[in-house]
Amino acid sequence: MSEKYLIVNTGSASKKYAVYDEGKEAAFVHFETGDGGYLSTVRISDKSEKIKISESDFDKALDYLIKTFKAKNIISDKNDISGVGIRVVAPGIYFQTNRIIDDEYIRNLKLAMKKAPLHLEGIFKEIIKLKLFFGNNMKIVGISDSEFHHTMPQKAKNYGIYSKDAEKYDIYRYGYHGISAQSIVNKLQKKGNIPSKLIVCHIGGGVSVMAVKDGKSVETSMGFTPLEGMIMANRVGDIDAGAVVYLSEVLKLQGLKLTQYFNKKCGLFGLSGGLSNDIRDLLKVENENAAAKIALDTYVYKIQKQIGASFVALGGLDMLVFTGTVGERSYLMRRRICSGLESLGILIDQKINDCTDGVDCNLSTQDSKVKVEVINTDEMNQIAVETQKVLI
Amino acid sequence: MSEKYLIVNTGSASKKYAVYDEGKEAAFVHFETGDGGYLSTVRISDKSEKIKISESDFDKALDYLIKTFKAKNIISDKNDISGVGIRVVAPGIYFQTNRIIDDEYIRNLKLAMKKAPLHLEGIFKEIIKLKLFFGNNMKIVGISDSEFHHTMPQKAKNYGIYSKDAEKYDIYRYGYHGISAQSIVNKLQKKGNIPSKLIVCHIGGGVSVMAVKDGKSVETSMGFTPLEGMIMANRVGDIDAGAVVYLSEVLKLQGLKLTQYFNKKCGLFGLSGGLSNDIRDLLKVENENAAAKIALDTYVYKIQKQIGASFVALGGLDMLVFTGTVGERSYLMRRRICSGLESLGILIDQKINDCTDGVDCNLSTQDSKVKVEVINTDEMNQIAVETQKVLI
Repeated sequence: MSEKYLIVNTGSASKKYAVYDEGKEAAFVHFETGDGGYLSTVRISDKSEKIKISESDFDKALDYLIKTFKAKNIISDKNDISGVGIRVVAPGIYFQTNRIIDDEYIRNLKLAMKKAPLHLEGIFKEIIKLKLFFGNNMKIVGISDSEFHHTMPQKAKNYGIYSKDAEKYDIYRYGYHGISAQSIVNKLQKKGNIPSKLIVCHIGGGVSVMAVKDGKSVETSMGFTPLEGMIMANRVGDIDAGAVVYLSEVLKLQGLKLTQYFNKKCGLFGLSGGLSNDIRDLLKVENENAAAKIALDTYVYKIQKQIGASFVALGGLDMLVFTGTVGERSYLMRRRICSGLESLGILIDQKINDCTDGVDCNLSTQDSKVKVEVINTDEMNQIAVETQKVLI
Repeated sequence: MSEKYLIVNTGSASKKYAVYDEGKEAAFVHFETGDGGYLSTVRISDKSEKIKISESDFDKALDYLIKTFKAKNIISDKNDISGVGIRVVAPGIYFQTNRIIDDEYIRNLKLAMKKAPLHLEGIFKEIIKLKLFFGNNMKIVGISDSEFHHTMPQKAKNYGIYSKDAEKYDIYRYGYHGISAQSIVNKLQKKGNIPSKLIVCHIGGGVSVMAVKDGKSVETSMGFTPLEGMIMANRVGDIDAGAVVYLSEVLKLQGLKLTQYFNKKCGLFGLSGGLSNDIRDLLKVENENAAAKIALDTYVYKIQKQIGASFVALGGLDMLVFTGTVGERSYLMRRRICSGLESLGILIDQKINDCTDGVDCNLSTQDSKVKVEVINTDEMNQIAVETQKVLI
């Protein structure tokens, strides 16, 4: 009998589910909230259709999902599912390993919610829903978004805080987007070889610049939580600890409220003065709107500097990969990031870059010392691969 | 009549004073607290002597100073001093300019003390002492340690916070160690030319990696306060905003107490588990003490990554300068930092490096694409130069 896994990837405004059968996607559903409503996109063997759904269908996504899959003959019953894999974004050494979600896991997850409340709340709720829906016998695997980074050397994991506090409170740089990076590494391996010195630039709502040496992570821009590093759609990225303390005082925000500020009111959204968190919107208006322009400039510049830092962490560079929705689809942002990286030996063919939209492609010129590639990430497939590894 | 200026540079555990006469040092006094006592080092025309002093002399440094200078015939009276220049480390656009310290300045300084309390307390007290000692007619100039960085492009000054909050609360990346960087740039100019793409690595109790394009700052590792960036003797350096919020909760520290933690209990001191904040101590024991080794490794690695980021900010590199007490004197740290920067075209001659201690020297090999130099910084002289510019 074939093993069917349900693969789950929940974000703040969208949820993705897929059924993987024998390691291949059998069906995929993407729920999202858009302008004035809820939308589901159902894809079955390359055919996809968008359907408006009710709020209740969105909330009870699992019921809707199973109903849809049954109607399409993907499964005959929810008991056809023999395991579930869900992406987990959680700080802590415990969460840097893929694990079956048991009582201990749930206890640790509750504790970790103090560390990254905004990122964990949705995941926690989803796990509880899955447990209730499938019953206690269903094996649910938490696929760590930071497992890939466990190979980082200690010097890259440390903050300059008191070492006993770091140990006691488990405060290190864990990094995220590891599932995406592993997906890229696996794709490169299938193509023939993993370049020894690789930077993966995952640019989506969140942004990570990851340095990968011989297939293993050695450095990444995100840290203890997904707040650190690059400027993101709504997240602040790097900021002086002194500025955090001062902002807490003047804005009279602490704890969860302060975390919400750094996660929601900052990034491109904040830098553009609340104009938009969407790069496409900002690109459209930047000629007339100085705030939009400076938001994009700051965003690009941070990524460029981080590529420089990663270059040193690797001791050179063989390949730069763009991935994530923006990395895969925005030729304008790729052009802007690469324009300024010539000193690292990075040269892209503008014509090829400009017509590359969501497909894997080599962008670098013949003269470029560094290969530059667009590679579409496949986090759902990677979660399925990792889930199978744990459950077999 | 010649113009005599008193030049003042106060730190947390030491105070430096000098009399500059016609742009040249006439006398210099360094007060420091050491093991079990207070010490003053008096230098007059290259002759220096160390004298143990009382706590009262240390506290009333100005009285002691003038008494000493009179005894040595440097001045006949405190009224010989025609102006005072003092280094000011303070966040804010207002403080990014050298200014005569008037009532408005004092008011702004009091407001700025909320932003960087630990760095400003000593400076504020010293200014009040100077005002009382010399009377209201004396012109005291605040020499900004961040003026040099006002040329940084806006994209390098921005954090990813809500733009209206940045404006309202004046929260940008100001950078410090600017007086030191300007001193290096001036020395290079006197030697003949300023390299177009220059990185100044100031390594002392504080650490800054500064990128200088055609003599002007374009990027630096410190930000709103001197906490950001590299790991320092006691300062934390870069840390995830999420980790700051979490540490505040678990350690039950807020405001000034939290700032003290990040300024005093962290850095090399913290990473070594409280062993020492002094690189020399850690170097001595690192073979037997894993915490000392990882503290040094993390410290070096952060500097290396920042040199990579600065390389990209400059679009290449012509010269890397080491300065500050550690940069000038520790061949071991310079060796360790450069070993790992070969990919940027940085190669140093180990023999020359190893015997360079506190003197200006070129360290790079013939093959090195980047010139590597040790250049002794002269902040006191630079403060004198800037003071004269304001007062003339």
